[in-house]
Parts: sequence; C-alpha cells; structure tokens
Amino acid sequence: MLLLSGEDVEKVLSMEDAIDVMEDAFRKYATGEYEMPTRVFSKVKGEDDYALMPCFVDEYIGLKVVTSYPSNYARKNPVTQGVILLNDRETGDPLALIEGTILTAIKTAAVSGVAVRHLKPEAKTIGLVGTGIQGIYQLMAAEAETEVETIYLYNRSPEKINGFIREYKELTSSTAQMIGMEDVHELINKSDVIITATTSVDPVLPNEEAIYNGKLIVGVGSYKSNMRELPEKLFRSAEQYIIDSEQGKVECGDIMDPLENKWISEKDVVLLSDILCGNQELVRSNPSSPLIFKSVSMALFDAMIGAFVYTKAKEQGIGTTFNM
Amino acid sequence: MLLLSGEDVEKVLSMEDAIDVMEDAFRKYATGEYEMPTRVFSKVKGEDDYALMPCFVDEYIGLKVVTSYPSNYARKNPVTQGVILLNDRETGDPLALIEGTILTAIKTAAVSGVAVRHLKPEAKTIGLVGTGIQGIYQLMAAEAETEVETIYLYNRSPEKINGFIREYKELTSSTAQMIGMEDVHELINKSDVIITATTSVDPVLPNEEAIYNGKLIVGVGSYKSNMRELPEKLFRSAEQYIIDSEQGKVECGDIMDPLENKWISEKDVVLLSDILCGNQELVRSNPSSPLIFKSVSMALFDAMIGAFVYTKAKEQGIGTTFNM
Repeated sequence: MLLLSGEDVEKVLSMEDAIDVMEDAFRKYATGEYEMPTRVFSKVKGEDDYALMPCFVDEYIGLKVVTSYPSNYARKNPVTQGVILLNDRETGDPLALIEGTILTAIKTAAVSGVAVRHLKPEAKTIGLVGTGIQGIYQLMAAEAETEVETIYLYNRSPEKINGFIREYKELTSSTAQMIGMEDVHELINKSDVIITATTSVDPVLPNEEAIYNGKLIVGVGSYKSNMRELPEKLFRSAEQYIIDSEQGKVECGDIMDPLENKWISEKDVVLLSDILCGNQELVRSNPSSPLIFKSVSMALFDAMIGAFVYTKAKEQGIGTTFNM
Repeated sequence: MLLLSGEDVEKVLSMEDAIDVMEDAFRKYATGEYEMPTRVFSKVKGEDDYALMPCFVDEYIGLKVVTSYPSNYARKNPVTQGVILLNDRETGDPLALIEGTILTAIKTAAVSGVAVRHLKPEAKTIGLVGTGIQGIYQLMAAEAETEVETIYLYNRSPEKINGFIREYKELTSSTAQMIGMEDVHELINKSDVIITATTSVDPVLPNEEAIYNGKLIVGVGSYKSNMRELPEKLFRSAEQYIIDSEQGKVECGDIMDPLENKWISEKDVVLLSDILCGNQELVRSNPSSPLIFKSVSMALFDAMIGAFVYTKAKEQGIGTTFNM
C-alpha cells in the first residue's frame, strides 16, 4: 500500500494538472462513466459530522473519509480532516491512503478552475471574499487559467489580509498585485471574477442587481443546507445558474434557496458538465448578464483526483510503501 | 497516524482478549451505547462487492472498508480484503489504519468464542465443517473457552485436511487430537460443539432432527441472503435460535429462510446480547434440545476490536507511525 502525505500530494499535483483532471471528471459526469454509491453523512455530536464518499471510476474504487468538526475551532485543530482510500476496482486490493485535506483544497479550487477556463478566461482581475486556506488554492486555480494582473481581497476581519498576502506570495510565483479592500462593493466593481470562499450562513455579497453585470461569480464555500454566500438579486439578474452536481440541489443552501424561492427557474439551473459536453447551451441573450458557478463537489471528483495523484506518485517514486 | 499490519495485529491481539472485547461489544449492543450509521454495500461487478461499515463507539469512529471478490478465486488473490480506519470521535483526527483481514478473522472467531463461553463451556469435542482460514481462528476461539480434547474435521475436499492440521499445530500450542472425518454424520455424533465455516449456498449439515440433541451448533460462514449452511430440521428441533445482530434477519439466508418458512417462530429468534444482559431468558424446557448460534457480525464489533488493537499497540510501541 502506498502512503501519500500532504507534502507528497503537493509534490506530485500541480494546479494545472488538477484542473485538467477535474475537466475530465466533468466529462465523465456528463457521460455517466462512473458509479457513485449513496454516501454516508452522519452527525457525530453537535455540529460535528462524519462523511463517507465512495465512487467507482476507471480502474479504481475511491473513498473519501472526511470529518467536519466546527468544534475544532475552539481547540485550534483543523475543522475539516480527510483521507482518501484507493482500492483496485478489478481485484479489490487496497492500493493507497492519501492525505485528503490538502488534496480536497486543491481539488475544490481545480473545479473552480474549470469554470474560469470556460466561462471567463479573459479575466484580468479577481476578487476573493474570505481569505482562509481555501482562498489560497482558489486564487492559484484562477491564476492558472487567466492572465490576472490584480487580486482584490476582502475579509470580515481585515487584519487577516496582510498575512494572507504574505502566505500566498510565499507559496506561489504569482506576480499579480494583491490589494486588501475595506468595502466589498468596491471589490465587486473592480473584479472580473468574484470568488466567495467562506462558511457563511448569510450572503456575503451585496443584495443588489446591476453590480454583477459582466462578471463571473464563483461560490465555493457553502455546502450545507443552512449555508448561504450568494444574494437573491444576483440570481434574479442571471440567465442561468451553473452548478457542478445534481446533488447540490438537495444539500446546499445556495442552490436550494434560489430554487425554492423561485429566484431562478429550475430549467435555468444547469450543469457545467452538460455545457462542456454540448448537452446544454450557455445562454447569453444579454451579454452583460452575470454568470454564476456554484460547486458542492462529489465523490467522483475525489476519486479521480486521488487516482491521478496515486498514478503520478508511483511514476515518480514518491510516497511511503507500507506492507499491510 | 499509526499503521498496523496483519503481523502487528497478531502480536498485540490474543484470542482471549479478543473474546473479552467481543463480550463487551455484545453488552454495548444490548444497552445501545453506540451509533451505527447505515452501511454502504455496493456491487462493483458480477459477484464482487464493496462495503463500508462505520460505527461510533467509546472514544472512536471505526470504519471497516471491505472488498469481497469471489472473482479473486481465479487469480489466487484473497477473496476478502479489508482495512479498518479509526478516527478520534472527539476531534475527528485520523488515528490509525489497521489491516482488516486477519483482524476480521480473529473477531469473527471471538464472537463464536463468546457463544461457546456462555452456551457450551463444558465441551470436550469440537467438530469443524469447512477447513479454510476462518476455521483456524474458530478452533482457536473454541479452545480458548473449553478444555477440548478432540477436534473432528470435515471438508468437501478431504485432501485439504492434513494441510489444515499441520497449519493449526504450527500456529497454536494446541494439544488436542485432530482427526479428519469422511462422514459428516460421524463428526456430528462425536462433537459437543459443531462449527460450520463455509461459504455454501446449500446446507452443509444433514437435514435430520435427533442427531443435534445436546449439541451447540455455531454457524459463521453464511452472510448473504443466498447463503445457507444450516438445515431445516435443525431449526425444527431447537427451542431458540440465538443470533448476534438484528441486521442478520434481513441479510443472511441462514436467518431469513428459517423465519420465512416458519421453521422457527420469530419470537424464538433471540439475540445473544440480550441473553448475556438478562433481557432474554435462555429457554431449555427440554435440556437435550440443541442450541444454535449464528453470527453475521456488524460494524460495532469491527470498531471495538480495532479500537482495542490500536490502544494495545500504542501501549506496547508496536506499529509504524506515518506523518500525514
């Protein structure tokens, strides 16, 4: 069995490759070349959850085991921790155990990268709302697909922004100018792509209509039914709402609320996978209407990125072999 | 994270301890001190399955990931392969990855050991039908709880018996006499406890009534709805049918068929856990009527044995630490 740490994952997985793998995953999602057994999602205590996300794809059985423990805020432990276990689909043999926290952050960003690649490759400015660890990888993905010149940053706690900029510059070779913003309106005004990467339960973008025209909004933070990052009027001003998975319609507040309240009609909620494969047209009757992409992810993405990392690591002789 | 190989498991886990842990698990099952999310059970291809069995118990989240690949017979790979992943219930931290195949064999035998301890501790003779790897551990468990003098062995392919005896003597310090039998009737006649450890889809014991009087029958092999080891008339001659878990009633042919066909009434199908805790009386209106115990196992057992092995290994400094 091959063991891959977070460091190993970062060694073998470039953001460019990760985006390509996720594009491939979207195409597999459209054509149905995978099997995803029902996932297990269980409350352990209070708000602390445990999830099992299995998927059979290509020659692999991928399983993400993830704990999401908001109670860890208090003890300065990571809130989300995960591992990916890979088995051989043909023989059942356990193949690899892969650190899942960094891999998930890269994968989540790579999913946004696919959206930016196809929906706003001409972007020169990016606005990021929420400057946590996920924000770092989101910017890496956006930069991989565009010629970004300026990045605007907003955080509820503005004192965190300078540390974020230092960290981002250390981790990447980005030459983009990075500017902290005190007013989120100004960030929206100046940005071609706006990424929200928070765990907010109330919209973090202003509930106004005209300000989003001509922009791509990428929502990545909310994943539960009680979470919301995007405001009503954004949906009302869009022609389509592009999402990554059907599952989001029943589990994510940022998709459930707009549908329930008819801020957007069901037929206009479309899958990015269908757009990529030509099963669905990207409607732009008004070329300045905003584009919205929302991802909630799924086991297929985790299995495919896990399998890619495993294959690359074997090729490059990276990782630790453990004889079970 | 602590990694424990099959060899590590054998170092830290004695059969005696395993039986004690399983008795503790039965008591927890009776009192409800655990949470078992619905397990995932998926067909991968043909008869090849993949199962995820999670359980929250004590300070742990235990997950058994198990592949059951009958197609591996042809390639001489193990049919059943598994790992156990342990997380900290309080913090979510991944704690350990434990080889699950040997651990499962020991656990399954230890469950039988609890039955022998409480239902037939006076046994002097054991009959084993099916001399595969599971049979080895079943005999170890039976010997741990009794003063066995003679072990009778039966296999459809009698040429396998001598090899089994050699292996058993090498692995254990057993002084019992071991005798291969050509006729399963004779094995039953001579044995106080009869253990069936096959994957048969048709009963491996004779469909006769009187021959089981005074004996304990332990069925461990069948775990799917199409599997059957025990014959109709055995059930008709018993006063109760003792099983290890409610789940068995909907997934195991050896429990489903007797209930559906009314070979035994629903009220007489009782849980060993309830007998151990005094919630259920062990009925013996006829002291010579046979006792039947059937186990199908459950995630609670895997989680508890995994947690025990992890604790012991940490105490004894056994295993490999891997920094995720």
